[in-house]
Amino acid sequence: MKICVLPGDGIGPEITAEAVRVIQALDLKFELEEALLGGAAVDVTGDPYPEATRKLAREADAVLLGAVGGPKWDNLPREQRPERGLLGIRKDLGLFANLRPAILYPELANASTLKPEVVSGLDILIVRELTGDIYFGQPRGIENRNGERYGFNTMHYTESEIRRIGRVAFDAARKRNKRLCSVDKMNVLETTQLWRDVMIELAPEYPDVELTHMLVDNAAMQLVRAPKQFDVMVTGNMFGDILSDEASMLTGSIGMLPSASLDANNKGLYEPSHGSAPDIAGKGVANPLATILSAAMMLRYTFNNEAAAARVETAVKKVLAQGYRTGDIYEAGTTKVGTKQMGDAVLAAL
Amino acid sequence: MKICVLPGDGIGPEITAEAVRVIQALDLKFELEEALLGGAAVDVTGDPYPEATRKLAREADAVLLGAVGGPKWDNLPREQRPERGLLGIRKDLGLFANLRPAILYPELANASTLKPEVVSGLDILIVRELTGDIYFGQPRGIENRNGERYGFNTMHYTESEIRRIGRVAFDAARKRNKRLCSVDKMNVLETTQLWRDVMIELAPEYPDVELTHMLVDNAAMQLVRAPKQFDVMVTGNMFGDILSDEASMLTGSIGMLPSASLDANNKGLYEPSHGSAPDIAGKGVANPLATILSAAMMLRYTFNNEAAAARVETAVKKVLAQGYRTGDIYEAGTTKVGTKQMGDAVLAAL
Ligand SMILES: CC(C)[C@H](C(=O)O)[C@@H](O)C(=O)O
Ligand SMILES: CC(C)[C@H](C(=O)O)[C@@H](O)C(=O)O
Repeated sequence: MKICVLPGDGIGPEITAEAVRVIQALDLKFELEEALLGGAAVDVTGDPYPEATRKLAREADAVLLGAVGGPKWDNLPREQRPERGLLGIRKDLGLFANLRPAILYPELANASTLKPEVVSGLDILIVRELTGDIYFGQPRGIENRNGERYGFNTMHYTESEIRRIGRVAFDAARKRNKRLCSVDKMNVLETTQLWRDVMIELAPEYPDVELTHMLVDNAAMQLVRAPKQFDVMVTGNMFGDILSDEASMLTGSIGMLPSASLDANNKGLYEPSHGSAPDIAGKGVANPLATILSAAMMLRYTFNNEAAAARVETAVKKVLAQGYRTGDIYEAGTTKVGTKQMGDAVLAAL
Repeated sequence: MKICVLPGDGIGPEITAEAVRVIQALDLKFELEEALLGGAAVDVTGDPYPEATRKLAREADAVLLGAVGGPKWDNLPREQRPERGLLGIRKDLGLFANLRPAILYPELANASTLKPEVVSGLDILIVRELTGDIYFGQPRGIENRNGERYGFNTMHYTESEIRRIGRVAFDAARKRNKRLCSVDKMNVLETTQLWRDVMIELAPEYPDVELTHMLVDNAAMQLVRAPKQFDVMVTGNMFGDILSDEASMLTGSIGMLPSASLDANNKGLYEPSHGSAPDIAGKGVANPLATILSAAMMLRYTFNNEAAAARVETAVKKVLAQGYRTGDIYEAGTTKVGTKQMGDAVLAAL
């Protein structure tokens, strides 16, 4: 069982180091191997997703990623920007199913900018399609037309692409509260009219799951108005990018939120929902819990080891209960710790 | 000075009736004429934007719209759905600049689901491009390809389309707090890379305005995390649809929020930001204030009558201070009124 570890940029190396310590402490005989992705890879090879990384990522059973990106690489040509590495590995490995939980931990309820009664107990799972849509659509580019620049991109989905992400979402809803809300913009976009049609066609296979539909503008509102109405949400790559970030920020503690990106055989890439936070990189203050919880998702989804996953998640809950907090979730009356101390606390709680 | 009044569907007729009373009370010699749009138009003519409406709307100096849509028309073919009427009139009149304020009235601070300190004093103006982008892009459709259905749409912008909406936004920022945040997804979409490039090129013409850029996923987060960081935001049609609805819901009182959609000569269509609320239609309980405030925007932008606009806005603030509330913004200790009584109160306060 081989795990490819991609520390990436910014706080990436610090937070993945703690997640690796946790994985090793489980003593499950994983083989871990590191490689470069994003800006770190550009610096060394000129390519944000270099051949050596590609080879290792393809061979491995799972990938653990820190985060990529930073101002240092912002002015490079498009193909060399760190996020190209991320988009490249997602597409290369066929990781079409992005699972992003937005969970509010009771101990961190104050961190939310929303009123406690609106978000307490929040537990949404956003299922975002990750290898299609306008992200990868051709034709695309910037051209000269009629004497001026013209920018264009193509949104598209085939029914089989929609069906396979639909099944992932229905299956996830079945294991939770059996409610699935599919988000589209069918009143304007034909692509998402097809999306809605295919979701409706799938529904009879899941009679135990209640399927509803919501337009994306309304979904953006409802997440603010009454987020607890949602159980599982499923949507395309572009809308999912926006709504999953909005949903995670409802908790106020995005430093706690993991994510999984799976292929058709549950091979997956696991990464925190937050970014590379270049402003605090190298200071030893970043919150490693989202990455540690991403490792727990890896144990659950790729290695099918629910017991080990639950063990890690329970340890994280315990350190919160013990009052340990990194700077991003600190409040008076708790104990402020750095990245490594937080890792120590989780190891102790295992 | 001719105003075309389009009551539309659901609560539309009730709320526009109150706005019309307010306009008439100003005694400014407007000629008002009514026509059909949306479902109401489909019912009578089979067309959501019928020829007679088109003629009147083109002749008029401004258009006042209630709202369109409702479940009654949801299963009609695409071309006959009410929202086609709305998209049709926007495109036909060249209304490329959609201005959507998100303002929290101090009296209604409790209505927000966000903590008071996060939203008190909120005053954002979202400038959304309204006649381009993936909304109107060709090619588009659903086809059979390789034996399965394939849905596709085209996002596109020309530099002149971006420049003209950019100017509207810079001008608006100049009249406010001189901060403009342009929202794009330049790390993925070439169309929005061009968007960012053109905004940057415009900036030297507005040295007094501070231009910043934000990715759309981050903007969706920042609106929840710290909405008061924004003054004016400018973005494309699709992202603007999502972000303006998210921003308006931050106030918790979307029944208070007007909007303006302007062409290059300040001819405009004015409508509340909320929808047609079919569930409460015909009951006389809908909040007419967003429509009345839309009429105020009409006085300001199309008729260049700042005094009359301010008079209407002051009257609305006064009725709030007097404690009058429709059901959507009611709380204990205030006086609950219906649509017509709210109109009466505004007329009295004028
Ligand atoms: C970095 C960027 C390309 C990426 C995306 O848009 O998918 C990120 O925002 C994410 O959500 O993982
Ligand atoms: C009804 C619909 C077509 C419309 C849009 O998406 O533009 C609406 O959501 C709006 O924002 O005015």
